[in-house]
Formats: sequence, structure tokens, C-alpha cells
Amino acid sequence: MSFEPDAARTAYEGRLIGLTVERWGDHEREIVEHPGAVAIVAVDDAGSVTLVRQLREPARKRLLELPAGTAEPGEEPLETARRELQEECGLTGGVWRELAAFWTTPGFCRERMHLFSVEGVERGEACPAADEELELVRWSVTEIAARLHEIEDAKTLAGLLLYLRTLPERTGPG
Amino acid sequence: MSFEPDAARTAYEGRLIGLTVERWGDHEREIVEHPGAVAIVAVDDAGSVTLVRQLREPARKRLLELPAGTAEPGEEPLETARRELQEECGLTGGVWRELAAFWTTPGFCRERMHLFSVEGVERGEACPAADEELELVRWSVTEIAARLHEIEDAKTLAGLLLYLRTLPERTGPG
Repeated sequence: MSFEPDAARTAYEGRLIGLTVERWGDHEREIVEHPGAVAIVAVDDAGSVTLVRQLREPARKRLLELPAGTAEPGEEPLETARRELQEECGLTGGVWRELAAFWTTPGFCRERMHLFSVEGVERGEACPAADEELELVRWSVTEIAARLHEIEDAKTLAGLLLYLRTLPERTGPG
Repeated sequence: MSFEPDAARTAYEGRLIGLTVERWGDHEREIVEHPGAVAIVAVDDAGSVTLVRQLREPARKRLLELPAGTAEPGEEPLETARRELQEECGLTGGVWRELAAFWTTPGFCRERMHLFSVEGVERGEACPAADEELELVRWSVTEIAARLHEIEDAKTLAGLLLYLRTLPERTGPG
């Protein structure tokens, strides 16, 4: 079953996001428009997962996250994921699998995220966007469980936890 | 280490959220302002976790989620969590524990979320806000693992997965 608003007006149109005020029956909802996104748990043959550390301006600090990115117009989620992984981390190839798809903040934002894992990626040269200053961080898959407390990002927590469940044997404590 | 923008202007001020355009060096960032939020994995003595199903207007559908809510001014996260759990679900008491704290979408939004678990809650009467139409759904803790694919919300995935890791024995497959 799908639902639609009775009326909608654009309150702000930005570069990445916009804001729409929708009327639903007797109440209004402020909704952040977003083109959708992907995040990737990328593991190489040495058993390392690649994370990125970067300044997140809304958080006022550098955060450690899964490689991720926003969909370009007309792009399928898997295309976005392959493109972002190569641009941000220089990683290509591998065997892909969709772990989940979810809304990141369904109370107020239309961002839907597809979460992938890819095993057996090959390392090459990254070419991040001009305004991205990324530090690549590698964790052994076997240390993920013990280091989850270092993660302060929702998609990264969900992604690493879902990925751990796909492994034949549990790794690490907990 | 903390970082601050060089300049900021308010582009939109709404009821729940606002939008600020910040200048950081040579680039601008559009940032959704948000007061912060909580989500709760609430388990009763019968071993049931309470979820809520409600229309999420940005998703155009009803979603199954952890009980959650937005901080009131001056409220500590645990206060928000106790209040929301009683209002939305009529659940009180129990032994509380903070499972994690994270940014929900740190690329463009200042929402920081605290995730709690509470064991041994008691059922009473819920009193949701006037514009909330909530259906309470109970899952046995033992069926969470097998039903994760029904979840399409990031905080609920992360919360249930983190909660499962706190249990002395794994429940369900996978």
C-alpha cells in the first residue's frame, strides 16, 4: 500500500538536498529531499575491510565510515556503489551482494540507502572529489567485532553488523 | 579535535528541522539542523521486543521500527527515551543500558541518536501524540534474527543487531 500527500510546496532547493513541506490530512510534514545513496563493505583477499575517515561538517569532527555516496541521476544502486568505491578508495572488481536496503531517517528524510558487500576487491588508485579529504583505514575482518565501539555512524554500524552475520564463523568477541 | 565553519546562514527554519548553509574554506555545505533523537530496544519479561508500525510520509509507506523520538529542549537522552517509550508504547520501568550513540546521516544532518536497550519493561497504556497513528508489534527475541529482512529502517537494523550481540547465547539462524 502506498500513500501520497494532499499537497506539497518546495521550501528550499539546494545543491544536494532540498526541503519540501507536505500536507497529509490535518498535519504538515517537513521532508528533506534526497536522491538516495549507497554504502559498501569492501573486503580484499587479504581479509581487510576498507573504511574512510573524513571530516563530517554536521558532526564537527572526523568520522570513520564505510565508503558511501549519493546516487547520480538515472544511476542504479549497484552502479553508484561501484563508482563510489573506485573514486573514494581505488577498489575495483570483486563479488557483489546486496546486504540490505533501508531508509536512513524515515521520520523526516527521503534518503533510501542500499548496502552492499563485495569480496575480493583489488586495490588501485583513488580519485576522490575535490572537496573530499579522505583517509583510507583498513581493518582486518577478524577485528571488526572488537572495534565496533569506535564507529559513530549508523550505516557503518548496520553494515558491519550485517556483514559479520554473513560470515561462516563468528569473528572476535561478543 | 573539533572543527567549526567559517560562516553560516539559515536557509529555512521549520517546526522540527531547519536548514543551514555553512561555508567551510572554499566549499559550502547544506546541513539539516536536528535536535537529536533516541531509539529503544525494549524487552519485557516474556521475552518480547516491542516495535511500532506507522506511516512514514517520506517513505510513502508504513514502516516497522524501534520506538524512537526526538529530544525536547534541555532533555538528557535517557529522559527522552523513557518519555518516548511510555508515550508511544505504554512501557515503563526496566533496566536500562546505552548500546551506542551515532550520527544517523553525518554527511548532511546534525541528528545524533542515542540507542538504548531496556530489559524487564512493564506494559501500561500508551498515549501517542495526536498526529501519530501507531500500531504496536511484538516480536519474540528468539525470532529477531530470522525476521531482520522485514526491517527497512537503519536505526532499527543497527539496534536489533547490537541488542542480539548483548545476549549470552545467539538466537535464531545466521
